[in-house]
Amino acid sequence: MSSAAATVCLNARDLLARRAAETPGIISFAGGLPDPALFPKRQLAQAFVAALQSDGTAALQYGWPEGSLELRRWIAGELNGRGAQVTAERVIITNGAQQGIQIAVAAVKDRSHIGIEPESYPGALDIFRAAHAQLVSLADPAGLYYVMPSVSNPRGSTMSEPDRRALLARASGNRGFVIEDDAYQGTSFSGARQRPLLADAPERVFHVGTFSKTLCPGLRLGWLVPPPRLAKRALRHKQASDLQANGLTQALVVEYLRTGHFAKLQKRARAYYRRKLERLLEAVRRDLPQFRFDEPIGGFSLWLESDQDADDTELLEAAVEAGASFDLGRQFRHGRTRNLCVRLCFSAVPATDIDAGVARIARALRRVRPPERRRR
Amino acid sequence: MSSAAATVCLNARDLLARRAAETPGIISFAGGLPDPALFPKRQLAQAFVAALQSDGTAALQYGWPEGSLELRRWIAGELNGRGAQVTAERVIITNGAQQGIQIAVAAVKDRSHIGIEPESYPGALDIFRAAHAQLVSLADPAGLYYVMPSVSNPRGSTMSEPDRRALLARASGNRGFVIEDDAYQGTSFSGARQRPLLADAPERVFHVGTFSKTLCPGLRLGWLVPPPRLAKRALRHKQASDLQANGLTQALVVEYLRTGHFAKLQKRARAYYRRKLERLLEAVRRDLPQFRFDEPIGGFSLWLESDQDADDTELLEAAVEAGASFDLGRQFRHGRTRNLCVRLCFSAVPATDIDAGVARIARALRRVRPPERRRR
Repeated sequence: MSSAAATVCLNARDLLARRAAETPGIISFAGGLPDPALFPKRQLAQAFVAALQSDGTAALQYGWPEGSLELRRWIAGELNGRGAQVTAERVIITNGAQQGIQIAVAAVKDRSHIGIEPESYPGALDIFRAAHAQLVSLADPAGLYYVMPSVSNPRGSTMSEPDRRALLARASGNRGFVIEDDAYQGTSFSGARQRPLLADAPERVFHVGTFSKTLCPGLRLGWLVPPPRLAKRALRHKQASDLQANGLTQALVVEYLRTGHFAKLQKRARAYYRRKLERLLEAVRRDLPQFRFDEPIGGFSLWLESDQDADDTELLEAAVEAGASFDLGRQFRHGRTRNLCVRLCFSAVPATDIDAGVARIARALRRVRPPERRRR
Repeated sequence: MSSAAATVCLNARDLLARRAAETPGIISFAGGLPDPALFPKRQLAQAFVAALQSDGTAALQYGWPEGSLELRRWIAGELNGRGAQVTAERVIITNGAQQGIQIAVAAVKDRSHIGIEPESYPGALDIFRAAHAQLVSLADPAGLYYVMPSVSNPRGSTMSEPDRRALLARASGNRGFVIEDDAYQGTSFSGARQRPLLADAPERVFHVGTFSKTLCPGLRLGWLVPPPRLAKRALRHKQASDLQANGLTQALVVEYLRTGHFAKLQKRARAYYRRKLERLLEAVRRDLPQFRFDEPIGGFSLWLESDQDADDTELLEAAVEAGASFDLGRQFRHGRTRNLCVRLCFSAVPATDIDAGVARIARALRRVRPPERRRR
């Protein structure tokens, strides 16, 4: 990563995050990053060579905006294995899930109100704000809803069956649409392959997925399955945005998927991340007893919530000073957050650093939070 | 490329282009594609291995939205070698020039009127139309102008010094901005390294560049240098669009640039494309005498204009039947085009096919255009 000094910083929070990322010795619970120890570098190198040899010219040349047919077939196959009925022609390859969400929002006409969960993915909130949408709850009427039903971020929870049904009924009643952000699907510790909302309401759902959490984010490969009647509009937005996804990494991933290593990697990753989570849960129970949490069923993070009305930026500053960092809870919420919430990502922290990292945050918390003194 | 049957087609023109691309034996003058014979596959494979070895983890992990510092340094160095004064921190890595233009448009507040040249890049026109801008001429007042001053598409011409000065004065007078699309810089046959508009008006110019025409489009790597006071807004748009450019191909290109082969490739490409152009000029003079044209100073295409009021779609259909294809002139224009114009890209046609391809278009033209009969 480049240095904080060598770029424009978006805001104070961004600057703080960059500083933390560059401070040596920091134990970072920030960022939603997969563990690079799981990146199959050797196999990707082999896949690259295979891709260049088998179809290198096409991979390096301009392609169609929807992307590689082979890759779209694989994605459709995965979705159909989970209960959907999708043909490859409906899939658009995007630059990660982020672009899938962005295109979905652009393709929907009535986006004046967007319904979201109480905590949500900050990158999606950025898109909704840029679209000048009014953010409301999932219970409110809206032209568009955004959810992560299989494994949510930041909570790592799964949407209940009644909630799924209620959401689809509400969207249908409003003639609205639902963005199903499936980015963390594949990270559920049980290996459960949840039925996507897309399977139950293909005409209402924009299904968004990615290889960022299960393979490598640097590949920037995701996908979007728009509702059929918005397919042209979505594809037009993809084309206007950047013509097409990266041909070379599409070909590389197609070759990698052909080897059959992906299923093994996912299995290994599930056990690997689960061990990290267990270690984190133990440390949090011991050192951060003031926080409430639900045990995640998957994902990369633990969502901690307390009744304190602390300033999380102050806590983060103190934590960075103590040698640890995390994500500010308020980033995941719309509007003002009174109580102190933080997201701890366990995914990319070396397992042996988890105890020390949590202890550092606990130390920082004691330093910034003598609530009696603050309230005087 | 995937099959036309396996996707949603955007419109009849798109369908026709896809059919032409998939018809075996077609000699295609369509698309603005670089010649894959110039893709340095072996060197890219070596660069890939070097990238994975030296900094593979960072390349595969999430990075900052602005992109690789090394790559940004190289881009700033190139621009400064042409008279600009740009620091690496001002450069944002994008998914090709298309995304650079897209972000520039999104970052400008007053985009109700956008000034363009009489012929322009269709991908940019798509963005402007999606932004509901009214397209006007470069001589009209506008909050934003879009030009390709070094080597234009489709004409392959360079902007005169008085025109450059007049444009910058007009933008400055309106407190407007200029998108300088430099995509074809590096393709000028003389090897001239034109001074960018950015050098003369850094506070007014969004400078957009790409590796698509000089290296490989499938890498999807371009850049944007926004005016300093819109830098944050531009970076925010990049982040909201897709978080960041592809880390792997950024690292790969950094390694490739380190080898010093790029300058040699560009030199070779200039001579290579020039020979193709000369062959095309000869064939057009011989077989398509009804068309006017100016000799391009660079770029990938020849812009042909006639006084006939022919239907270019009809001509394209006949040409595809005769075994050749090209780009419809109307795609490069805003509003109605009465006279018959076509863009012939010579870049990706095998040199030995150029004569036959032009002869096929001439044949098609004779078939669809007995104007006396049509006018009866």
